Amino acid sequence: MSHAPRGSRVAPTNVRSDRVRAVHALVRPAARAKAGLFLAEGPQAVREAVRWRPDLVRDLYVTDEAARRYADIVDAGQPVHDVTPDVLAAMADAQTPQGLLAVCRIPSVDLDQVLAARPRVVCVLAHVRDPGNAGTVIRAADAAGADAVVVSDGSVDAYAPKVVRSTAGSLFHLPVVTGMPVPAVVARLRAAGLRVLAADGAGDRTVEDADLTTPHAWLFGNEAWGLREEDLVLADDVVRVPVHGRAESLNLAMAATVCLYASARHRAGSAESPTGP
Amino acid sequence: MSHAPRGSRVAPTNVRSDRVRAVHALVRPAARAKAGLFLAEGPQAVREAVRWRPDLVRDLYVTDEAARRYADIVDAGQPVHDVTPDVLAAMADAQTPQGLLAVCRIPSVDLDQVLAARPRVVCVLAHVRDPGNAGTVIRAADAAGADAVVVSDGSVDAYAPKVVRSTAGSLFHLPVVTGMPVPAVVARLRAAGLRVLAADGAGDRTVEDADLTTPHAWLFGNEAWGLREEDLVLADDVVRVPVHGRAESLNLAMAATVCLYASARHRAGSAESPTGP
Repeated sequence: MSHAPRGSRVAPTNVRSDRVRAVHALVRPAARAKAGLFLAEGPQAVREAVRWRPDLVRDLYVTDEAARRYADIVDAGQPVHDVTPDVLAAMADAQTPQGLLAVCRIPSVDLDQVLAARPRVVCVLAHVRDPGNAGTVIRAADAAGADAVVVSDGSVDAYAPKVVRSTAGSLFHLPVVTGMPVPAVVARLRAAGLRVLAADGAGDRTVEDADLTTPHAWLFGNEAWGLREEDLVLADDVVRVPVHGRAESLNLAMAATVCLYASARHRAGSAESPTGP
Repeated sequence: MSHAPRGSRVAPTNVRSDRVRAVHALVRPAARAKAGLFLAEGPQAVREAVRWRPDLVRDLYVTDEAARRYADIVDAGQPVHDVTPDVLAAMADAQTPQGLLAVCRIPSVDLDQVLAARPRVVCVLAHVRDPGNAGTVIRAADAAGADAVVVSDGSVDAYAPKVVRSTAGSLFHLPVVTGMPVPAVVARLRAAGLRVLAADGAGDRTVEDADLTTPHAWLFGNEAWGLREEDLVLADDVVRVPVHGRAESLNLAMAATVCLYASARHRAGSAESPTGP
């Protein structure tokens, strides 16, 4: 298999070239905002990008070895540039990008558009700063069949390399709205008919007792201090994940997984009921 | 508040002293096995150690600042040694031990003893290698009210510093059995009357449909390749966490959290039923 002619532009061979620097600059928020681009690194993220959002993929950088190993990804039609392992490492944020990196366009996703599609479950990250937790919650939302994710202002950048890696490709699976203040998000969600449930360890109702039968949004707060008081009071209901044993708490990603899967259970239940006799 | 006289032994002041080296050596498995000791780092882990398993705490090393800030931990009665931030950093594995480190004895926990207490839910980690996933599953087991955790042979050492940190203190909350081969674990669990459920993405039954009403054990496999075929066939039932949306999978910690919380729901249900009229 030859893949050499595919690259339409001259691929950089020098780790200090302007192109390499420009790609690596995307590890920084300011450079991402200015260019409107972000990095997807490694076969899992790049495969999902190419498969589900090929419109977002601007350039694919691959080593020879990766081009052979991940032929399914590289042959999907995006502009491919062959690079040496050194050049790829100099472009990447990840320590092990496994020979594959995509420069992608940051999609512009509007909350009103998302709401026009009548979502049943929306996941809101309010002032979540930890990239691993944020990415894992986006992955959990995807796996639990949520319709959209909102990452509020004051949160980690959803397109930071570590967030992208933690989503394991889910960033390309469902709409992710960014940059809005929590009160504005809540107001629009409610206007669209969704109940707003704040997940908080001090909630008086457990996730088992929460009403998840109608369209709703989960509000998840910061990984260290939870939801701010001013955001908590905006919710229709405050719901906790019960903590048994002697544990004091769950981490954000685990608590969100339990909540989002509780929503999925109710959804599966309601989807099944119309098939009855 | 003065805490200087508490230290019964002379605290090391030199980062290259034998004592500092001996403590730091516990980041390595061989040194832990030889000494029968491990490190608990940071206020959360050390607080839980002091609170729930003071019998395991051999020595507490604290900086001045941490002694003031975490007086509740330091005043609990364990032998305290005042050290400089440099010495603490030289002893620790964590980049930010927050001024507090405990050298603890590795408890010897016997599966037969655990089973004699008639557990209702047991969590088995089979060949799990990733310390963050292993620690998070132990934390999830604790939070979901499981009675014990088994970490099989061929898994990461449950007392490795990164596992201890990821458990967020749960390692001191419930019995953790280590070092046994999976087939031996399954045989004993079954002999004690527990059903053995393998968590696997290819299970024909979802976690919602699994029978969790009687005592059972969850078998969770390696974070990358799942359960080995020879372990999978030992189970009474193979159960999957349904994956909705376009996501391909959940990570191990998330899947285990969903399974263990499903067990907790059934347990809460059965615990409530006898209180009916």
